[in-house]
Parts: sequence; C-alpha cells; structure tokens
Amino acid sequence: MSRQPKAVILVSGGMDSCVTAAMARQTHEIALLHASYGQRTERRERRAFDEIADFYSVSERLAVQLDHFVKIGGSALTDMRIAVPEGEAGTPISCNEIPSTYVPFRNAHFLAVAVSWAEVIGASAVFIGAVAEDSSGYPDCRPEYYRVFQQLVREGTRPETRIEIVTPVIAMRKREIVQRGVELGAPLDRTWSCYQFEDEACGACDSCRLRLSAFADAGITDPIAYRARVER
Amino acid sequence: MSRQPKAVILVSGGMDSCVTAAMARQTHEIALLHASYGQRTERRERRAFDEIADFYSVSERLAVQLDHFVKIGGSALTDMRIAVPEGEAGTPISCNEIPSTYVPFRNAHFLAVAVSWAEVIGASAVFIGAVAEDSSGYPDCRPEYYRVFQQLVREGTRPETRIEIVTPVIAMRKREIVQRGVELGAPLDRTWSCYQFEDEACGACDSCRLRLSAFADAGITDPIAYRARVER
Repeated sequence: MSRQPKAVILVSGGMDSCVTAAMARQTHEIALLHASYGQRTERRERRAFDEIADFYSVSERLAVQLDHFVKIGGSALTDMRIAVPEGEAGTPISCNEIPSTYVPFRNAHFLAVAVSWAEVIGASAVFIGAVAEDSSGYPDCRPEYYRVFQQLVREGTRPETRIEIVTPVIAMRKREIVQRGVELGAPLDRTWSCYQFEDEACGACDSCRLRLSAFADAGITDPIAYRARVER
Repeated sequence: MSRQPKAVILVSGGMDSCVTAAMARQTHEIALLHASYGQRTERRERRAFDEIADFYSVSERLAVQLDHFVKIGGSALTDMRIAVPEGEAGTPISCNEIPSTYVPFRNAHFLAVAVSWAEVIGASAVFIGAVAEDSSGYPDCRPEYYRVFQQLVREGTRPETRIEIVTPVIAMRKREIVQRGVELGAPLDRTWSCYQFEDEACGACDSCRLRLSAFADAGITDPIAYRARVER
C-alpha cells in the first residue's frame, strides 16, 4: 500500500505530459487524467494515454470528452476548416504571435476537470506538463498563468482542500525534457505529438517540428514513426 | 443593428441568472450560454434556459453538456446516491459549512466555457449570476474568486483579448434580486430553481427555500408551481 500523497496528472499523450507523469511518480501516487476535445488526433492521443497508463500500471484513471470545443471552434485543432500550419522541418517556430492551433482558454478547462477530480479523490497536487519558453507561444503555458490558477484553486474549493498546481517542465528546454524522460525510463515510444495525423506523425506541424528538434538536440533518436523520415 | 458591445451570459435557468441576463441586456448585446452537467434537474433547467432565451429573442445561444461531472461525482447534485438535503420551509439555510450540493470547483468549468466562447465570438464581457452572502455558502460564489478569475482571463487569453468578468448580483440580497427582476420585467415565471424535481418544485431543498424566502421577503408571489404550496 503506497503511503505517498496522491496527485492527478494531466496526460495528453504527448511527450511533455508523459515525462511529467514520470517525474510525478517519484514523489506521488499518480492518478492519470486525459481530456479529449474534438481535436483532430483525439483517438490517437487517447490511445497514447491508455498505453502510458498501462505502462505505469495506473489503476486510477479518468478520460473525459469535452465536446463543446468543437461547437466553440476558433482553432485549427478543432475546426477542420482551418488548416494546421506546416513548416519546413528544422526551421524554428515563431514565438512572436499566437498560432492558429491555439485553442481559446483551453488549459483552464483541463485544469478545472483536474481540480474537481483531485478534490473528490483527495489528491493534494495537480501536475500539468506545460512548457513556457521553448514551445508554441500559447498564453496559457506561462508560469504566471499557473500562479494565478493556484490562487483560484485556493479561493474556489472547500476551505480544507489543499491542491498544489505543479508544472515541473515549464522552464525546461524541450531537449532537456527528452533527456529527463530517457533518464527516468519514460515510455516515449508510446507518446503522440502530431497535430495532423493518427497513423504516422506528419513531421511538419509545429508540434512535430518541436519534437523532432528536441530529440535531435538531445542526440537521441525519436522512437515513433514519421510519414517521411525528415532530413535534419 | 445593435451597436452595443457583446456579452456572454451564463444562464442556468434559475432566478439569479435570469435577472443577470435582464441587467446585462441594458448595456450589452447578449449571447446566452447554458451548461448541463448531469445534475438531477438538467432537462428542466435546459427548458428554462430555452424559454428565457426565447423571451429575449436571443439568436446567439450555446448549450453545452459537461458529462464528466457525473464521472467525477462528489456532490448530491450529480451523484444520485447522495441525497439532496431538505429543510423546513422558512427556516434559515446554514452558511457555516459547505453543503453536500457543492459541486467541486464547478463554476471554473462554466467560466472556462464562457471565456472560450467569448474570445471566439468577440464578446467583451462574461456575466455570471453568482450570489455571495445571501446564498448557499459555495466557495466559488464569493467576490474574491471572481477577482482571481479575472486575472486568469487576462493571463490565459490572446494578448489583444479583453474580457471582463461581471457579477452584477453578487452583493445583492435574494429579495433584491426578485425586486430587480420584477422591475426589469424579467421572465421569472420561466425560471427553475429546484434541485430535486422537474415537474413541480419541491419547496424543501436549499434552493427552493432560498427562492421562497426571497419572494416572501420581497412581498411578491412566486409564479412557479410547488409540489405542496408551503405555509409560510
């Protein structure tokens, strides 16, 4: 019987959240939470979530479906009429503007589910694998956002509830996240990052490009399959 | 063609949110949002929402279904194994503890949907009919909670997005809300407050008791039907 405190980990199925789970389980008994929101690759990401949860033999898991994002739209990830932007592999991602893959205020929904669940199951922490600097430029991936969310949790839950919002990879370079994952034996081969496809990763969307750069910079071969193995 | 700024109003179907909508439309073009979450009376509340939206001829409306609350549980409203507490009509509601009808961190989910939708449709405000003092003692109904949520919106949306969180009835007594509703000609007869039943209101749950007290204190007859018209 584990005596570690319990934590809810938001696991999208991508690399950052997988490594976040690997880090969290060093100090916590982990409960894994996945949220689908009508994004293009939701079935593939859900499969990655299940495989990561199986890898860690996690019994407490919750998968939720947030269908309203498709009704709301406004993002290339949930509105099939907006194309996912592609770039040449190896070229840097611009961080100067919010990309069309930004899903309006998305992480507030994910965190709200995580905090509600954490309060009910008695978890004392919620881990989320947001990455600030070395990422896509989403406003809800910055440290200040999580500091404010922490205040919101304090104000909006039962007086006796204590839930810490933990962002262990937020200040890490993507390369470091890969390295940490490898050190911890995280199942990176089971993760999925591509915004576009569900069979083989495209290698061209921002998410694939960030991932490929991260592995290349870390000097490690990405274990997942790409549609066309990109020259780097 | 309206030149008023647009606002999203969270309309549960209850009295407070109906009066909030009535107040909001004095200054804004209103878009109405309803969230069902597997609560006992969700069909009846949805009907009240539709009838209020029809009353105000609102074309922009969104109804979302947040099914995960039932999976998460932990509340008498979403877990049918937990009884809704009843009290004698006319007796005061205790505000010293969080009632079993508290749905963990619920309003964060509602506000998240409202802000995402507001950002996509270009609304500059989100109105919510939370009532602090004279209500059921939920932590996410207090002014400080909304001040923090306002900061979260600033941090977590596009840099150019400006969405104000407005809580026009938060400091009002329930009696005053009834009076304001009547002054503004709000369709209080189309609202639904009962936590338990969908045909006629029970008159005994906290929500019915608060409502009945409010109408009694205002010296106005509640236009909706109760299972047993309660002596007061």
